[in-house]
Amino acid sequence: MAHRYDFASDNVAGAMPEALNALVAANAGFASGYGADHVSARAADLIRGMLDADVDVRFTASGTAANALTLAALAGPHEAVICHEHAHIATDETGAPGFFGAGVGLIPLAGASGRIEPATLAAALDQPEVAYRQSPAALSLTNATEYGAVYGENQLGELVGAAKAAGLKTHLDGARFSNAVAAGFQLKALKRLGLDVAVLGGTKAGATPSEAIVLFDKQLARRFDARMKHAGQLVSKARYLAAPWIGMLETDAWITRAAHANAMARKLAGLMPFSIAHPVEANGVFVDMDDAPLKRLYAEGWQVYRFIDGSVRFMCSWATTEAAVEELGAALKKVA
Amino acid sequence: MAHRYDFASDNVAGAMPEALNALVAANAGFASGYGADHVSARAADLIRGMLDADVDVRFTASGTAANALTLAALAGPHEAVICHEHAHIATDETGAPGFFGAGVGLIPLAGASGRIEPATLAAALDQPEVAYRQSPAALSLTNATEYGAVYGENQLGELVGAAKAAGLKTHLDGARFSNAVAAGFQLKALKRLGLDVAVLGGTKAGATPSEAIVLFDKQLARRFDARMKHAGQLVSKARYLAAPWIGMLETDAWITRAAHANAMARKLAGLMPFSIAHPVEANGVFVDMDDAPLKRLYAEGWQVYRFIDGSVRFMCSWATTEAAVEELGAALKKVA
Amino acid sequence: MAHRYDFASDNVAGAMPEALNALVAANAGFASGYGADHVSARAADLIRGMLDADVDVRFTASGTAANALTLAALAGPHEAVICHEHAHIATDETGAPGFFGAGVGLIPLAGASGRIEPATLAAALDQPEVAYRQSPAALSLTNATEYGAVYGENQLGELVGAAKAAGLKTHLDGARFSNAVAAGFQLKALKRLGLDVAVLGGTKAGATPSEAIVLFDKQLARRFDARMKHAGQLVSKARYLAAPWIGMLETDAWITRAAHANAMARKLAGLMPFSIAHPVEANGVFVDMDDAPLKRLYAEGWQVYRFIDGSVRFMCSWATTEAAVEELGAALKKVA
Amino acid sequence: MAHRYDFASDNVAGAMPEALNALVAANAGFASGYGADHVSARAADLIRGMLDADVDVRFTASGTAANALTLAALAGPHEAVICHEHAHIATDETGAPGFFGAGVGLIPLAGASGRIEPATLAAALDQPEVAYRQSPAALSLTNATEYGAVYGENQLGELVGAAKAAGLKTHLDGARFSNAVAAGFQLKALKRLGLDVAVLGGTKAGATPSEAIVLFDKQLARRFDARMKHAGQLVSKARYLAAPWIGMLETDAWITRAAHANAMARKLAGLMPFSIAHPVEANGVFVDMDDAPLKRLYAEGWQVYRFIDGSVRFMCSWATTEAAVEELGAALKKVA
Repeated sequence: MAHRYDFASDNVAGAMPEALNALVAANAGFASGYGADHVSARAADLIRGMLDADVDVRFTASGTAANALTLAALAGPHEAVICHEHAHIATDETGAPGFFGAGVGLIPLAGASGRIEPATLAAALDQPEVAYRQSPAALSLTNATEYGAVYGENQLGELVGAAKAAGLKTHLDGARFSNAVAAGFQLKALKRLGLDVAVLGGTKAGATPSEAIVLFDKQLARRFDARMKHAGQLVSKARYLAAPWIGMLETDAWITRAAHANAMARKLAGLMPFSIAHPVEANGVFVDMDDAPLKRLYAEGWQVYRFIDGSVRFMCSWATTEAAVEELGAALKKVA
Repeated sequence: MAHRYDFASDNVAGAMPEALNALVAANAGFASGYGADHVSARAADLIRGMLDADVDVRFTASGTAANALTLAALAGPHEAVICHEHAHIATDETGAPGFFGAGVGLIPLAGASGRIEPATLAAALDQPEVAYRQSPAALSLTNATEYGAVYGENQLGELVGAAKAAGLKTHLDGARFSNAVAAGFQLKALKRLGLDVAVLGGTKAGATPSEAIVLFDKQLARRFDARMKHAGQLVSKARYLAAPWIGMLETDAWITRAAHANAMARKLAGLMPFSIAHPVEANGVFVDMDDAPLKRLYAEGWQVYRFIDGSVRFMCSWATTEAAVEELGAALKKVA
Repeated sequence: MAHRYDFASDNVAGAMPEALNALVAANAGFASGYGADHVSARAADLIRGMLDADVDVRFTASGTAANALTLAALAGPHEAVICHEHAHIATDETGAPGFFGAGVGLIPLAGASGRIEPATLAAALDQPEVAYRQSPAALSLTNATEYGAVYGENQLGELVGAAKAAGLKTHLDGARFSNAVAAGFQLKALKRLGLDVAVLGGTKAGATPSEAIVLFDKQLARRFDARMKHAGQLVSKARYLAAPWIGMLETDAWITRAAHANAMARKLAGLMPFSIAHPVEANGVFVDMDDAPLKRLYAEGWQVYRFIDGSVRFMCSWATTEAAVEELGAALKKVA
Repeated sequence: MAHRYDFASDNVAGAMPEALNALVAANAGFASGYGADHVSARAADLIRGMLDADVDVRFTASGTAANALTLAALAGPHEAVICHEHAHIATDETGAPGFFGAGVGLIPLAGASGRIEPATLAAALDQPEVAYRQSPAALSLTNATEYGAVYGENQLGELVGAAKAAGLKTHLDGARFSNAVAAGFQLKALKRLGLDVAVLGGTKAGATPSEAIVLFDKQLARRFDARMKHAGQLVSKARYLAAPWIGMLETDAWITRAAHANAMARKLAGLMPFSIAHPVEANGVFVDMDDAPLKRLYAEGWQVYRFIDGSVRFMCSWATTEAAVEELGAALKKVA
């Protein structure tokens, strides 16, 4: 029996043709190293254009690195980052913020479907500042959330505004930001939000390994290359990290293929015999499922995960086919 | 006037066809993430076969990261790593060992052409251990050296042996190890040396960004994936870091193209009107050159660097052509 | 109205005469620095004698430092330390373990009155080891606990044994270990437990600032002075950190005065008009108390704290007098 | 034969009576913890008065910690601190700046007798900023220097001014600042210099372990207690670190006893049969001395050190007696 990884994560897919072709195209000729090349420049221009914002852009091979590196620039080691308790930085990155940030802390907040509620944030910001705790210096938000929910601009704006009013810096983990955009989030809202940093996901969207660090706060850009180099994140042949973005953004495939992934999730939700645990707004479907049917599903070869909240997660990607969704749907019916 | 980057570094070249084709081939289908995929497994097998050693293998996108991550596993923050004073880790990595190692120190040693002499190492190992200094816990050696010299197995063995006898761990920065092998260093000598870790360079050899971490000491492999993830070095789509190695190793291009780079360096040395500063044993040519001719060379469009020892460096790569060497040779004659 | 700090903490008291006199006595003459002095040697000998164990001993001015420094020696940055969710290292040390340990994580466990139950620990040890989480490398236990409860030797032994069986190192935060001993815990049990490190509290026991780091695992002692120096914990005039221990241990005041503090807590518990929230086994009394009476108590000048679990904490120390307890008892009756 | 430590360092002396008496006086009664006590407040007031500057003041038990903690607040991990190549932070603190600063680098500069020359600093500041090196973010100066030389206000001002003009922060390691003041440096010059941080030495001046961190830049004071706590430098019974300063400053003994130490050094220099290697401007005497006479001196029981520049160091302190100087003088004559 062959294992089926299609729905295990959105990082199990290969690269979309637009990304891979651009990478192959970028291979020609000699190019300056460490990001000072024409490919990196072009990719950054495309991101600036897409966001309509005069931002600094860098590329890393890892989203964990992109998050942790920028959070370390926003909060000191004696301070903390507020985030959702199930944010990727809190549950899936092996403590990377603490490593990059020399012990920077996390202040995890609860909230339905990976979203933080304004009242919850307000309570965290209201905590008295004492020397024996790491007080918050930054807020990290994720859109789309880990549970496939999507913040609207107003929702995100309220949180960002409250954080900024309290003197915090703000960070967006946009590992699945293209899915949020495909779900209706305005690309240009990023600029309006007044964020300090956003990480835009390439990998899960369908690139070869690449994440775009978008520095809205130009002050942060000072010596940022040294910060990257220091942390092993400034590769010499940087063009290969930038190239897939050219392909994905010139063709708009970054969004259109995210829209496909979202559509596949909706289709899967429609076929789902288990009750849906979180709103299906992006490319993930989370369901309530006991161990017995899950075991039967595994026995059919399907690789999926029981997530941190106890629900079972099915992720769609740019590469998910209608046929695969239908196959999975049939398998789910069988094991239900 | 077009800028000519050909000789600026060996990381200005693109990827060799063998590497790129393998990357494209690896793109097909779904694959498990974080290194647990068939591509990473195959690449690791090829490395084990090539070295005839039962080693653990990981891939990173950055050589700085590969070095710093492993050195941090070999020396505590209150300890130090002995290295050549012009080793890449000492002069070109923005203090990355200190960042990954929470302040781990370096003990830089002098030595002609990037090589450390046994007597110099012995003197360093003889230093009394005092609490107010970071005492050495590891030795890092580079082959080929930063100056294009190549240690022979006996030379390297003497240094490694002395370090081990003193209780130190040992690390090889092999960013240009393929060039050393092409120059006569036996691949299987690595195993004989008794190293703890070797980093084998893919990037400079002609891969898309990728370095292979080779863990000879299997104890080090324990929780090494967590260590990588923690440091932002475990990418989800790991197959893209492993794939180029399959292409380079199955075809032996990793060595044969390094041999070509070495040959281009020798050819360039033969045409050189300036005096050669270091033995041309690998793919670099270093010459004594005043500012005036260097300025004239820049004016001709050639990008090269005055190196840390004051000499001017010309690097050849897999992509360096005979024609380019001749063109550069002519330009050098003109500016001399 | 004068503020009354007597019950705010056990670190608001001055030093007991035995400690202060020894410090004054240690002032005479010249002494070698950095712990290589006769005072430090004598204090370490007394601790070895008291514990009947061939241990290495160091002294720091801060308990946070003593804990974090030793935990950083027991767990790597990509690993974690299991502890009670309300352990001092988790809630009151501003993330110090993460700072000293370059991002080392904590795995907080629930448990009544600051004690961890074996089943809870077993469940934590049973977690599958995955690269995206910091897996446990050490267990930290606190005796007496933050809630004034005292583990018996068997209870502690069961936890330590389970941790060791799982390959973890073990650490005891003994900031109030003298109170635990005064409550019946056998001093020599420490050795029997097979701990790697214990931190014995001087400060809260009645010393000038000083904590004793006891290294049961002699391997840890290797380069430990460098580790201390590196972390700003090796003071040159180390005799002043060691001296109070001579006074406290030669006279047995470390225990007898802890017994007094414990007795004062029991006396206070007897006078308490509020319901007792945790067993009064050491020198703290925790009660259920609404905001209104607490506010009235503050208005009377008494400084106490609402603790992390919502109860109100009253701490006794070597310096707490019967009269003060009675005064506080009367005040509590008044505000109840 | 008894060992004589008198001249081994200035930290081998005990505490001067003024310091010890103040510590004993501070022992009375209860006091709030973590620096929020009347003793710490009074000591800080005395320092503000002495410097005629509205500064924030904190106390640590270790000078290494005081230096490293503040340098970590002035330079990021991807940046560096410029200092003299033989500065204490570079040669005697086991890499503490790198530990506190998560890998922050040092840029060591040469200079006679521990002083940096303006031209040397200018050259360092002129280095082009590149991503592969840690560029300077702060300048650390030491007065009196490690070699017992004393910068004048103009000399120091020129260096500080150049650093500030280049955008660097500035730090003074004043472990022996009282000796510099006794040698003529104006106390109030500190404020005029425009430093960001100065560390004033208590320990070597004759306190029990205590250094005063003086934050001229009030911005740095934000969350500085958390920074201290995080790094294990905020002791609960903080009054014991502050108290000696009250005794030393109320009586002016901090300066007058430094003047005595300086006078003893001059007296020793007058008796010295070996050639003086550095200007005797503070409390140290450095001489050119071969191994043979040094060995004979050791044989007489005198503990002194061959320093990093090869000279032999004799340190005087507040506790050095005329008789001891004469005794040592006689011994030196004998072994010369």
